[in-house]
Amino acid sequence: MEQIKIFLDEKDMPRKWYNLAADLPTAMLPPLTPDGQVVTPQMLEAVFPKNLIEQEMSTKRWIDIPPEVLEVLYQWRPSPLRRAVNLERYLKTPAKIYYKDESVSPAGSHKTNTSVAQAYYNKKFGVKSLTTETGAGQWGTALAYACHVFGLECKVFMVRVSFEQKPMRKIMMGLWGANCIASPSNETQAGRTILKSMPDTPGSLGIAISEAVEAAVTDKTGRTRYALGSVLNHVLLHQTIIGLEAQKQLKKVGIKNPDVIIGCAGGGSNFAGIAFPFTQEKINGAKIDIIPVESEACPKMTKGKFAYDHGDIAGMTPLLPMHTLGSQFVPPAIHAGGLRYHGMAPLVSQAIVEGLMRPTAVDQLHSYEAAIIWARTEGFVIAPESSNAVAQVIKEANKAKKEGKQKTILFNLSGHGLLDLVGYDKYLSGKLESSQVTSDEIKRSLERVQKVHVAPMRKTGKW
Amino acid sequence: MEQIKIFLDEKDMPRKWYNLAADLPTAMLPPLTPDGQVVTPQMLEAVFPKNLIEQEMSTKRWIDIPPEVLEVLYQWRPSPLRRAVNLERYLKTPAKIYYKDESVSPAGSHKTNTSVAQAYYNKKFGVKSLTTETGAGQWGTALAYACHVFGLECKVFMVRVSFEQKPMRKIMMGLWGANCIASPSNETQAGRTILKSMPDTPGSLGIAISEAVEAAVTDKTGRTRYALGSVLNHVLLHQTIIGLEAQKQLKKVGIKNPDVIIGCAGGGSNFAGIAFPFTQEKINGAKIDIIPVESEACPKMTKGKFAYDHGDIAGMTPLLPMHTLGSQFVPPAIHAGGLRYHGMAPLVSQAIVEGLMRPTAVDQLHSYEAAIIWARTEGFVIAPESSNAVAQVIKEANKAKKEGKQKTILFNLSGHGLLDLVGYDKYLSGKLESSQVTSDEIKRSLERVQKVHVAPMRKTGKW
Repeated sequence: MEQIKIFLDEKDMPRKWYNLAADLPTAMLPPLTPDGQVVTPQMLEAVFPKNLIEQEMSTKRWIDIPPEVLEVLYQWRPSPLRRAVNLERYLKTPAKIYYKDESVSPAGSHKTNTSVAQAYYNKKFGVKSLTTETGAGQWGTALAYACHVFGLECKVFMVRVSFEQKPMRKIMMGLWGANCIASPSNETQAGRTILKSMPDTPGSLGIAISEAVEAAVTDKTGRTRYALGSVLNHVLLHQTIIGLEAQKQLKKVGIKNPDVIIGCAGGGSNFAGIAFPFTQEKINGAKIDIIPVESEACPKMTKGKFAYDHGDIAGMTPLLPMHTLGSQFVPPAIHAGGLRYHGMAPLVSQAIVEGLMRPTAVDQLHSYEAAIIWARTEGFVIAPESSNAVAQVIKEANKAKKEGKQKTILFNLSGHGLLDLVGYDKYLSGKLESSQVTSDEIKRSLERVQKVHVAPMRKTGKW
Repeated sequence: MEQIKIFLDEKDMPRKWYNLAADLPTAMLPPLTPDGQVVTPQMLEAVFPKNLIEQEMSTKRWIDIPPEVLEVLYQWRPSPLRRAVNLERYLKTPAKIYYKDESVSPAGSHKTNTSVAQAYYNKKFGVKSLTTETGAGQWGTALAYACHVFGLECKVFMVRVSFEQKPMRKIMMGLWGANCIASPSNETQAGRTILKSMPDTPGSLGIAISEAVEAAVTDKTGRTRYALGSVLNHVLLHQTIIGLEAQKQLKKVGIKNPDVIIGCAGGGSNFAGIAFPFTQEKINGAKIDIIPVESEACPKMTKGKFAYDHGDIAGMTPLLPMHTLGSQFVPPAIHAGGLRYHGMAPLVSQAIVEGLMRPTAVDQLHSYEAAIIWARTEGFVIAPESSNAVAQVIKEANKAKKEGKQKTILFNLSGHGLLDLVGYDKYLSGKLESSQVTSDEIKRSLERVQKVHVAPMRKTGKW
């Protein structure tokens, strides 16, 4: 029987992060101030600690992971590389489907890879308290955990619609002592302004970021900073441990590079985490199809433009060069699948511009259908975000079947969906209807998943 | 650095279950009918398939695990053996604390070990549909998963108070096509009778079992059977894979037998799973302190009597020889921690009578306190049931510290608590008050957990 769980020993855990900025054919465009000046490190010091600002601006290829960070990560890392043999059998595809399982962290997603690093660097710099925003809740949960580990206070501004749909998220952050409040809130000028003009707004990541940044920079002790869960260079850097581990694990089963790499992409961090180390291989000549998958409800890569834009609604962040739908963008309230951010990480955006990546978008219905197919083949309940990646994996596996090619597909399973079951319920009870999806399409989708089943045994073909 | 995650290859996964009935010094007392006759296999055939009845009555020491079952289990087994080094550091104990992590299954607990086996044997026997009960929801979820895998229909009667507190459980069972309804229900005679006399009852496992058994035996097709998630011999048998794996994993770190073994015990299955293979060692001379931990809210082992009693409230099951609080027992509604069953598995009860095990009880407040200590040291959110075991682990680790002994403690982490956060919230917001716990005790408990923190690094002692 073929191995379906590939583990890695602690001693083989990567000791350095990989920085794609060192290898991109064209140098990255710098962040700008609203009047067009290049942002200097000093300008960012009210928001981030110096050590992370240095990392943000670094073009060094390899950056040491501090032992204090490795120690914490080892609680759940190296994460397993798994092979989705049941899904392969269901699809009758000749493709081999491998995935990194990032659901195994205490907070349940890949986000802890950077939350731990960011909490460590802030602690080292003398910071006492961190603020942040969260959408679906994965990032806020991860930062709550990391702040507890390093003894920092933590305040999380959670996008209101998610806050209301997912009351368990607030409880979970509370386990680690963090304070989670709905955004827009009355605690900040930005929040109060929005509430005045749009009292019924579902909230957005752009709004929540404005609030969290304001709360950090206006704190009078001077020892509060802000932490971002995606988009920025240093955040993506911390996630590359995923792809670096995957390289070692694939080697154990005799694979140098996969043919296809897939990750869902909201701000881009989990996708970058698995993709960037292989992007270096691609720059060096390897033939790999690297696919960031966004939601059709928030299509910055496939329908936005590559331009300088703010990271938040109030324009508190610098202008970043990225694929964007505009910083005023608010995704439709019907959207239950995460990946709500209006912009794409500059490093991913630049790699797309260079032709190294092939972005695509998945609609919410097919994304939830993929999540149910996964639960009914592989068994596990995955995050709605990750299901966008799985929907694309299914497309690629079916393509390989048509072509009769024994491709290797690698994707990142960014987290579990055990705190996101309300979205699943909406899908299964036929309530995902929207301007883009008809009730008839929903009905057909539900009929399709009724039939999802994996019967025969791997070894004998019998049951 | 010492290894904290000990994995086992598929090839080393146990191929046989261990049956403690073969080694108990005194033969097991048989189940009886209400008029005192020994229950024959034929009498059980309306409830269970013949192949499982054979297993229930077997005294063979080793029983082959069918390859079809192994194939499904391999999706997440062997489960990791982990060492709780952060908890050890927090407690400053010389004890080594190891645990089997059964939270890694698709349904999130150890229950899948038997649900997969039971679904397989029912399918093989020609059964089309299974009924069952569930309390906290772990078992119903596990059976829903297993029924989907083998293509069986599944109906779950869920204790009403849990059904209302945990709406996500019903959704999760629905992912795999199962139908979950609150018990008592109007679907059975037993349910209607109870609803008439106690319309506001929170429900109990005893009631839900009556309903599920009735639904199975009255089904006119004759192809519906009932499945039980604990208590019975064959259920405990299927769980022994946990302890058998643990033996191999401990051997990898040079440990033959632990000094102390701990498991929480509702009906006894997860406890038996980790304890029975080591109980054989104890019968053969090894010195091991084997501790089943019950909740003070449902204290059958420490305050009940060893007697023949029904497994359900309506008296539909045979009389079983077990530690019991009486089949009419309903735990207090304030109780949020699982382990609600009125009786203890006959095999565990008999082993207690023989002096092989030392039962103890934990109160709800200390159990939740232990769960928070775990989340703030080890990081993971555990099932309220498992936290009873952790509370006892903490006691034993503190005892080892007082004695200055380098003991090895092994326990079973039966599942994750990601669908049980409402209970955590009750504890953290000071609402666990009951006849047994004062608001002052709650306050002191919350003050204690505020201080829980693990600072220094394992290797250097610094941070």
